[in-house]
Amino acid sequence: MDDKVLGILGGGQLGRMVLEVANRLNIKTYILDSGINTSAKQISNSTEHIDGSFKDAESIKKLCEKSDVITIEIEHINADILIDIQKSKPSLKIFPSPKIIKLIQDKYIQKIHFIHNDINVAESASVEKSEESLIKIGGKFGYPFMLKSRTLAYDGRGNFVVNSKEDVPKGLEFLKNNNLLYAEKWCPFIKELAVMVVLTQDGSVHTYPTVETIHKNNICHIVYAPAEVSSKIQVAAQELAKKAVGSLKEAGAGIFGVEMFLLEDGELLINEIAPRPHNSGHYTIDACVCSQFEAHIRAVMGLPIPEGATSFSTNTTNAIMLNVIGFKEPNGELKACHRAFETAGASVYLYGKSSRHERKVGHINIVGSSMEENKKKLDYIMSGVSSKVPSSIAGTSKTPLIGVVMGSDSDLPVMAVGANILKKFNIPFELSIVSAHRTPLRMVEYAKGAGDRGLKVIIAGAGGAAHLPGMVAAMTTLPVIGVPVKGSSLDGVDSLYSIVQMPRGIPVATVAINNSTNAALLAIRILSSFIPEYREQMERYMAEMEKEVNGKIERIESIGYEAYLK
Amino acid sequence: MDDKVLGILGGGQLGRMVLEVANRLNIKTYILDSGINTSAKQISNSTEHIDGSFKDAESIKKLCEKSDVITIEIEHINADILIDIQKSKPSLKIFPSPKIIKLIQDKYIQKIHFIHNDINVAESASVEKSEESLIKIGGKFGYPFMLKSRTLAYDGRGNFVVNSKEDVPKGLEFLKNNNLLYAEKWCPFIKELAVMVVLTQDGSVHTYPTVETIHKNNICHIVYAPAEVSSKIQVAAQELAKKAVGSLKEAGAGIFGVEMFLLEDGELLINEIAPRPHNSGHYTIDACVCSQFEAHIRAVMGLPIPEGATSFSTNTTNAIMLNVIGFKEPNGELKACHRAFETAGASVYLYGKSSRHERKVGHINIVGSSMEENKKKLDYIMSGVSSKVPSSIAGTSKTPLIGVVMGSDSDLPVMAVGANILKKFNIPFELSIVSAHRTPLRMVEYAKGAGDRGLKVIIAGAGGAAHLPGMVAAMTTLPVIGVPVKGSSLDGVDSLYSIVQMPRGIPVATVAINNSTNAALLAIRILSSFIPEYREQMERYMAEMEKEVNGKIERIESIGYEAYLK
Repeated sequence: MDDKVLGILGGGQLGRMVLEVANRLNIKTYILDSGINTSAKQISNSTEHIDGSFKDAESIKKLCEKSDVITIEIEHINADILIDIQKSKPSLKIFPSPKIIKLIQDKYIQKIHFIHNDINVAESASVEKSEESLIKIGGKFGYPFMLKSRTLAYDGRGNFVVNSKEDVPKGLEFLKNNNLLYAEKWCPFIKELAVMVVLTQDGSVHTYPTVETIHKNNICHIVYAPAEVSSKIQVAAQELAKKAVGSLKEAGAGIFGVEMFLLEDGELLINEIAPRPHNSGHYTIDACVCSQFEAHIRAVMGLPIPEGATSFSTNTTNAIMLNVIGFKEPNGELKACHRAFETAGASVYLYGKSSRHERKVGHINIVGSSMEENKKKLDYIMSGVSSKVPSSIAGTSKTPLIGVVMGSDSDLPVMAVGANILKKFNIPFELSIVSAHRTPLRMVEYAKGAGDRGLKVIIAGAGGAAHLPGMVAAMTTLPVIGVPVKGSSLDGVDSLYSIVQMPRGIPVATVAINNSTNAALLAIRILSSFIPEYREQMERYMAEMEKEVNGKIERIESIGYEAYLK
Repeated sequence: MDDKVLGILGGGQLGRMVLEVANRLNIKTYILDSGINTSAKQISNSTEHIDGSFKDAESIKKLCEKSDVITIEIEHINADILIDIQKSKPSLKIFPSPKIIKLIQDKYIQKIHFIHNDINVAESASVEKSEESLIKIGGKFGYPFMLKSRTLAYDGRGNFVVNSKEDVPKGLEFLKNNNLLYAEKWCPFIKELAVMVVLTQDGSVHTYPTVETIHKNNICHIVYAPAEVSSKIQVAAQELAKKAVGSLKEAGAGIFGVEMFLLEDGELLINEIAPRPHNSGHYTIDACVCSQFEAHIRAVMGLPIPEGATSFSTNTTNAIMLNVIGFKEPNGELKACHRAFETAGASVYLYGKSSRHERKVGHINIVGSSMEENKKKLDYIMSGVSSKVPSSIAGTSKTPLIGVVMGSDSDLPVMAVGANILKKFNIPFELSIVSAHRTPLRMVEYAKGAGDRGLKVIIAGAGGAAHLPGMVAAMTTLPVIGVPVKGSSLDGVDSLYSIVQMPRGIPVATVAINNSTNAALLAIRILSSFIPEYREQMERYMAEMEKEVNGKIERIESIGYEAYLK
């Protein structure tokens, strides 16, 4: 595709997945890493890879001599020598720039950089390797606080939680091999979020969706994409990630993994940035058309990244990534891979690494149109046990697609008939009482949150001065179906007019008086326009109705209308 | 993943894409092909690949010695030697079985096999390589007929169209290097369809979706997935493909590309079967979670393929595959790849092959939620010119999502108001007159075909004894919105009751009398539950309404209600 040659410092699984894309694009690539059979080198027959350390000046020089573009798959490389080489070979493009790699290598300097750029981070302080210095910080930050290595720390290595004064010597012992330390005030986060960000050579910044990362023993374990937070927080996380990477414009180009903390009050703090493809972005291989690895290649090689390329491949995509991490018992972790093969929507990626306790040897991506479904698959893959769907009284337990509400429990006998239809079709729904006149604030909350909670349709039943359907419709973009419930006077015409005669601008889909059956069927038709299973069910339902009437026709014709009447 | 070693006969692009999956699954794989840098061998650093022909007995023996499972990426291999080897090494699994490979190698025997198994094919006859024999067939089949090589034919090589008696010597000359010929009656197909089918070792048969293939100079050029044919034909094609592959159960396991012809009357004929991954299945890399290459690996290695793994990744996935075929001018074809990089939803796959005129050097997949959108992207990638969307009077030119119908042109002034809303939101829709009472058969046709044509919602307006909305709803599973149009008497209450008071079983979403605005807004709300762009637009629309009223509030409060009235 491109005559330019790409050199990569580091040949682990991230390099492997970058190389996979380079292979697909006919981009000549050389890997620098120790060994001739590293994860990345395995998938290339080139004889020109370099066997050497990505910290070794001579090896790096060799790679740079034969490359037009240099990038990294790990940040713990010798950045100083890259800075030197850049000076003597100005035509060489190094992305991200060695200067930014160096800045990121020292987590404390990284934090200071963000503070200078007005980007929220947890409060930090540099400390000396002495009990005195740490006790002083403990006094300032309170306990627990984090004691962290400034350099060479990843996958939780180099982090220690100081729970009390008494922990101070243990912390110093734990981090005795790390030269530079810093302390971080305890961050009472409720979730860890992450966003992959691409910086292109023309200075534009693209973000992937916001995801939630779950760590186990300080190693990334599971990623939920998108994160199950409000769309407001999702957007705020993407904006913060963009701002953080934007502050590193000197990096030139490449992909960045931005990890952050979500606090209870909705505030977001940057945790740290990885200047390379990142474990939290592995889901993009299946969930996005352009994976993080392809985006990285495109960015550093100067190929275009169009608007939208870094978003989910469809509007309903949900993904879960599960790391395959070595068991104590060799290859024990592969059992999960076997279960993934049995699971539609799951894909297995192994890195050509031998099994070793706590080693990342692969990952599994699960994609589907609902997170609920993906989670059930995850349960099976992790445990071998299919999770059951507990039934509940007012609906089913999957994420509800339809919300059924009514103004009063006196409407329930009418509305329950429709609810039974939803059950018959096995549609996940919720059912409750929301009164426009008696619980107006509850109604506002219900209507405003309905879309974000995943509902696709609302059915609202009310009688008399039946305001509920119209008022709910006024506060959501969802289609609202109104069921006029017949009251004690006017035969339900009061309810019907109250519901159907909405002013221009706010529609309510009105069905016949007391006919919650049709409200349910209409809601199912709406779903079935987009979800083929429901369309098939509706076709069967309608065929069944026809058959039933045909049966009556047959009977009336065979026995005659008089006998039929009896 | 698996200790079993896989040997592949053939190391071209199909082998490369199979190997890519094997790499991801840590499956040790050896390639047999001539050369050390074939397309497949490029993406593996194993030193144990075999440099030799896949027709050469000794090379095949070598591969079989070191493999536990043998498969092919091309059917023109030495099948006889595989049959021998199988006898002396019964533990070796060869998928598909050499016997079936041999059967498929001879296209005429293949045809006879299908005829014996009661599977529709074009009428064929074996012919001698003589003018006399061909003229006799011409007399029997009529002109034009196809003269085809029985063996070693693919990508249109080995096919000649005999247009008249005078063409007979030309045909013999064209195929002079082919030993065995057969003639095929001209098949007046309207489309060429294809289905990828997976046969597993336990005998189950899975199909991928039905696609349409477009050939140029006898080479596969473009694939549309799914094929733009009715869902009935899609299913029939899958069933036929299943039946055809089912007749090859002795094959053991593997993936098969089934090519067929669709005739004008809806009949399907098998053209031929490829016992391996196939060009018509390349779209699966991006459109399905489990690609054809992965399905093949799973089938031959005995890994599970769960129900649903071979279907589109989502209900709204549409894909187009464009082959990247060598230009006369070297690398001229790469311009299309560059344009694909500029196109969201497009992915480029190059095979590590040098550019040569008419050589397949790669392919481009385009995925999206509408075929219309994908086609526009294809236009751009092929020509560099973005196709414009011509506007039309009664709607927009994209595949319509909403159908607007009314009983009479007298309803148009009312219904046009709603149509304008749809235009304002830039929703593709169609608009026409369908009268329940005056054009009842047109109504039946309209309602019955609406879902298959891609409509998601129907808006129907009618007045008086307003039967149209309810009758349309009775013949479709789509949600139908009814607009009661006010007639000359009863103030529209007649229309309202006729539309809203539907019997249980068939719902109509009724809006206020004459309020086609709300019908349009309701239809957009339905779309917006599944299409986020529309949800955003609806949010903006509602915010705009609020702002407008706020303006009025401000004005009335500042100038007073009396001045306001003037």
